[in-house]
Amino acid sequence: MSSCGQFLSDNAAAVHPRVWKAMRAADAPQSPYDGDALSQRLDAAFAELFGRECAALWVATGTAANCLALATMVPPHGGLVCHREAHIEADEGGAPGFYLHGAKLMLAEGEGAKLTPHAIRAVIDPIRDDVHQVQPHAISITQASEYGRCYRPAELAAIGALARERGLGLHVDGARFANAVAFLGCDSADAVGPADALSFGCVKNGGMSAEAIVFFDPALADVARYRRKRAGHLQSKGRFLAAQVLAMLDGDLWLDNARSANAAAAEIAGACGERLMHPVEANELFVRLSPAERETLRAQGFGFYDWGADAARFVTAWNTRAEDAAALARAIAGL
Amino acid sequence: MSSCGQFLSDNAAAVHPRVWKAMRAADAPQSPYDGDALSQRLDAAFAELFGRECAALWVATGTAANCLALATMVPPHGGLVCHREAHIEADEGGAPGFYLHGAKLMLAEGEGAKLTPHAIRAVIDPIRDDVHQVQPHAISITQASEYGRCYRPAELAAIGALARERGLGLHVDGARFANAVAFLGCDSADAVGPADALSFGCVKNGGMSAEAIVFFDPALADVARYRRKRAGHLQSKGRFLAAQVLAMLDGDLWLDNARSANAAAAEIAGACGERLMHPVEANELFVRLSPAERETLRAQGFGFYDWGADAARFVTAWNTRAEDAAALARAIAGL
Amino acid sequence: MSSCGQFLSDNAAAVHPRVWKAMRAADAPQSPYDGDALSQRLDAAFAELFGRECAALWVATGTAANCLALATMVPPHGGLVCHREAHIEADEGGAPGFYLHGAKLMLAEGEGAKLTPHAIRAVIDPIRDDVHQVQPHAISITQASEYGRCYRPAELAAIGALARERGLGLHVDGARFANAVAFLGCDSADAVGPADALSFGCVKNGGMSAEAIVFFDPALADVARYRRKRAGHLQSKGRFLAAQVLAMLDGDLWLDNARSANAAAAEIAGACGERLMHPVEANELFVRLSPAERETLRAQGFGFYDWGADAARFVTAWNTRAEDAAALARAIAGL
Amino acid sequence: MSSCGQFLSDNAAAVHPRVWKAMRAADAPQSPYDGDALSQRLDAAFAELFGRECAALWVATGTAANCLALATMVPPHGGLVCHREAHIEADEGGAPGFYLHGAKLMLAEGEGAKLTPHAIRAVIDPIRDDVHQVQPHAISITQASEYGRCYRPAELAAIGALARERGLGLHVDGARFANAVAFLGCDSADAVGPADALSFGCVKNGGMSAEAIVFFDPALADVARYRRKRAGHLQSKGRFLAAQVLAMLDGDLWLDNARSANAAAAEIAGACGERLMHPVEANELFVRLSPAERETLRAQGFGFYDWGADAARFVTAWNTRAEDAAALARAIAGL
Repeated sequence: MSSCGQFLSDNAAAVHPRVWKAMRAADAPQSPYDGDALSQRLDAAFAELFGRECAALWVATGTAANCLALATMVPPHGGLVCHREAHIEADEGGAPGFYLHGAKLMLAEGEGAKLTPHAIRAVIDPIRDDVHQVQPHAISITQASEYGRCYRPAELAAIGALARERGLGLHVDGARFANAVAFLGCDSADAVGPADALSFGCVKNGGMSAEAIVFFDPALADVARYRRKRAGHLQSKGRFLAAQVLAMLDGDLWLDNARSANAAAAEIAGACGERLMHPVEANELFVRLSPAERETLRAQGFGFYDWGADAARFVTAWNTRAEDAAALARAIAGL
Repeated sequence: MSSCGQFLSDNAAAVHPRVWKAMRAADAPQSPYDGDALSQRLDAAFAELFGRECAALWVATGTAANCLALATMVPPHGGLVCHREAHIEADEGGAPGFYLHGAKLMLAEGEGAKLTPHAIRAVIDPIRDDVHQVQPHAISITQASEYGRCYRPAELAAIGALARERGLGLHVDGARFANAVAFLGCDSADAVGPADALSFGCVKNGGMSAEAIVFFDPALADVARYRRKRAGHLQSKGRFLAAQVLAMLDGDLWLDNARSANAAAAEIAGACGERLMHPVEANELFVRLSPAERETLRAQGFGFYDWGADAARFVTAWNTRAEDAAALARAIAGL
Repeated sequence: MSSCGQFLSDNAAAVHPRVWKAMRAADAPQSPYDGDALSQRLDAAFAELFGRECAALWVATGTAANCLALATMVPPHGGLVCHREAHIEADEGGAPGFYLHGAKLMLAEGEGAKLTPHAIRAVIDPIRDDVHQVQPHAISITQASEYGRCYRPAELAAIGALARERGLGLHVDGARFANAVAFLGCDSADAVGPADALSFGCVKNGGMSAEAIVFFDPALADVARYRRKRAGHLQSKGRFLAAQVLAMLDGDLWLDNARSANAAAAEIAGACGERLMHPVEANELFVRLSPAERETLRAQGFGFYDWGADAARFVTAWNTRAEDAAALARAIAGL
Repeated sequence: MSSCGQFLSDNAAAVHPRVWKAMRAADAPQSPYDGDALSQRLDAAFAELFGRECAALWVATGTAANCLALATMVPPHGGLVCHREAHIEADEGGAPGFYLHGAKLMLAEGEGAKLTPHAIRAVIDPIRDDVHQVQPHAISITQASEYGRCYRPAELAAIGALARERGLGLHVDGARFANAVAFLGCDSADAVGPADALSFGCVKNGGMSAEAIVFFDPALADVARYRRKRAGHLQSKGRFLAAQVLAMLDGDLWLDNARSANAAAAEIAGACGERLMHPVEANELFVRLSPAERETLRAQGFGFYDWGADAARFVTAWNTRAEDAAALARAIAGL
């Protein structure tokens, strides 16, 4: 695959050298599972990042992170509100149905795959408070969203206020949380808002096989630890996952990587003009392109996914080369 | 942890250099999930090893491998027979209950944690053929067993014949399959017998985070692929898992590693005499030792787990040093 | 509750005298569960009704009937297509998520809560054939629909053809199947079309506590029997449920009852004119009525449910008195 | 079936005339589900019986009652302790695995299918407090037990004390609770002990299709109501189930019926002498009888189940005629 091919997705990009280095350094035998020194450091590392008590667990995938987090908030007979195009609804192979034992995903609408208090209320207010209808127990949002849009701190606060008012848990799918923080330029704490749990993504941002579930309510983590084992996600050499996460946090590598990816996306966005279906705030671009235009780009060696009949999705990564982004920008401008 | 500490378990041992090398070589961007060239080679690699058609999927843990394999054989309202001390029953945090949606584990007895047709019949024959009792749909055995005992090919054939006669699937938990093949000195095909699926372990044998589920009936793999995704076990950089598995198979590294571990165990076993609770056929030793004797060994720097009140478990690994094994043997002999 | 109150629903109406009589006649001790002579007659009774081989199981509720039927067609990792306003989606408290172990309900649109091949394809055609998206395994339709609309035989045949073409099971929720057959005036076989299973309703039609699941593929019934027990729905005095179902079929009581209910609905419909939101084909009326108008009707003693802000739902039953229907018609006409 | 046949089981016996009468009286239309006046009386009726706050739900079967009760106490990743021969383990078709989403039944031993604190500790004390092993969350006992043995109040208090000490819920399967109270001659409250929930049986004691789940912690009932609907057990004409339960409580019919059954069992027991495998405390007799002896009894028209190779089970019911019991006693004495 040529280097241009990497506009397909950030999810298979190369692993960052500092992640490799940290993994190699973790090879010395250690206590198994999450009893090793690296795993034991996660809580403190995230507590420092977010400025409050945290309990953090590594897992191998974002799907597992999302589902294990939600399983602490939603009973089997309950439901959760998410966007109709949320990853948990559209792209996780029904994993929430599995992990939540049949709980219901209640689908809300919203520009750019973002939810608003209004959109959430439109879903939950009509639910009769009786046993014939599934009752909501949580809200799940994605930061940055599936269309690369970022929730501003005030938006998060408003959703959090609604969650508290209705007694709902709040989960943030942060597969691209780094890109959101890099864009927002705010503290991590402000970019996650009053969430109960965050799926903190690393794999799309230079990691290999580790994400973190960050619980801001440590009691939830106690349940999640049992569920993680029960799901076959407690790796015996967990030190290698902890090492990845810590390497990402160390020296803010996670933010540096995200800034690189965002910058490449911004460069390309600059050439797209009216073609953009969504403002580019993170590292994804949804661009109106006719079939012929897409063919032209592919003929030049650019790799990307079609997005319906008349558009394409481009994703930049931590290691997208500036010249590749510039080349794509030129190619689009030249269409 | 001193190097002697590694008698605690093989599950946290260092990663073999050739596995590291294969992982590094896999870092070039590739198709995500299992669309990469390495993942695509797994079927053929195992077909060559077993001399028949195979479909193989990587997963991160033995628990996931066991449960995904069994989920293709046992419906939610069914059951499976396993040994009372099987890993799936005793040490997987209830994962089979999760993956099999509440199917029942039917517990059989057997010397050395091994099942026999007689022991299996003792469990399933009394089950009334009516809806009030859960009906068996599969048998799961462990090769090598939880006490380090190996099924001989004739034993596997006999269990397989019973399985076919009763219409039951047959799964082999091969977390330490390598140690069994190394001990038996037979073909891999003879060491797995007429199984429908094998959990082929790598992590305890020099891998980092990859096991393989080998399906001898490819139709089962088609279901397992959906279940793997649904369980959050489809890693986007799956090439790194495939690389581990292929590195193990390449040049029979898996057998070399297992032979080393077995040899270290045999050396120690030679010093244990009547203390051995089970013949040592793989890389685990269960040794009668009084509390005082265990204290003596620990004072000398040896690490291991207690096994009840009057015994200890020692596990060797691919990288157990000969001098460490010899030292432990001497220490036990000197008690 | 005054007799007028029965426009609230048919689901709590009195039990028909012939059902009572049959239940009393069943009181003599019999084999437990479904081993009694009455339960054993169900298969033949439905085979006669539908003119083909059937396997029929009694259960206590329509929710259980629907879910047990669907559980034979949809694996936990699969999905099924139903209307957005289908009872299984909107009013069964998440029961399909429970019985199907987290399988996904894929919601289609359609006038009058009816599906069409076009509407079904609009849901399933965009689903990528990969493990990241839940794959459809069945279609569930409601005859008569949640808005009292009936599928014509040709419509059923078209949906059945699509189901076969795509390898999907077809389930018919017939909570008010009797009303549909009474309206259509066709054979029962034509009113169910090429379904694999039918939830045959009795409770809303003069029964007390028995519905039947009719499987047109007896192999599905073999699975459903285990699932019924597992769900706690295998009553030990099942003869009383079988008696209800047989009483309904005997002498076409089920059709007579449905004709009465339909006739009452038709009488009321005649007075509604433009107020009707849906043509009245069965025993439900959805009538545009302002809050003030509804208050007027309630002041006259009529009982019914609001249907949103500007409408009401009226349901007639087998025992709705002609004078009550006429009175309601007059009252509506007089608004 | 001859009247003697009723020694097969109490679970298919005739319905008591006062139950029939109450059901007929309930036929006037009412609010659906459990909104009717009868259903609304259940809490108070049981509060009076047990002398403390209760929340009571009707369901159709003991299996549903047991599983819905336990689902309020045991999370999917947890377990519960019950006797190896408990009905929930041996005769409910895996229903607990379904309702508890794969939670684990931890099997304890005990004379007469009764548990003791010692037997429970033998199961739970060896469980390591880590995520690799399923942790216990509840205890379930059967009063009277599967062998017709009754827990004395002091025994219940001791089990309850252990439950509280370990933070475990306590459930009592009271399919034959009436027989236990009739035998013990104590208050109902003393016969249930410090339980959190009781499955209060009616079907085996003259009811048709109604059991009650009595929650002594009303918060548990709030969850159970959602789970009942989700399991398809919320019948729309629930008034007929409530009527049955209330009829059983009214004038202590439940105790009168149980005393009759117990008396018949005692009469037979008097003829069994050394043949009895268990003391007869309720309405079940387990009697050592050779195949030839069983044949002799059957030739005389007595109906019963074999109990293994060398014994038989006889069950008396509320309507076992004194002359039938006497005849059986004579027949056994004459062997």
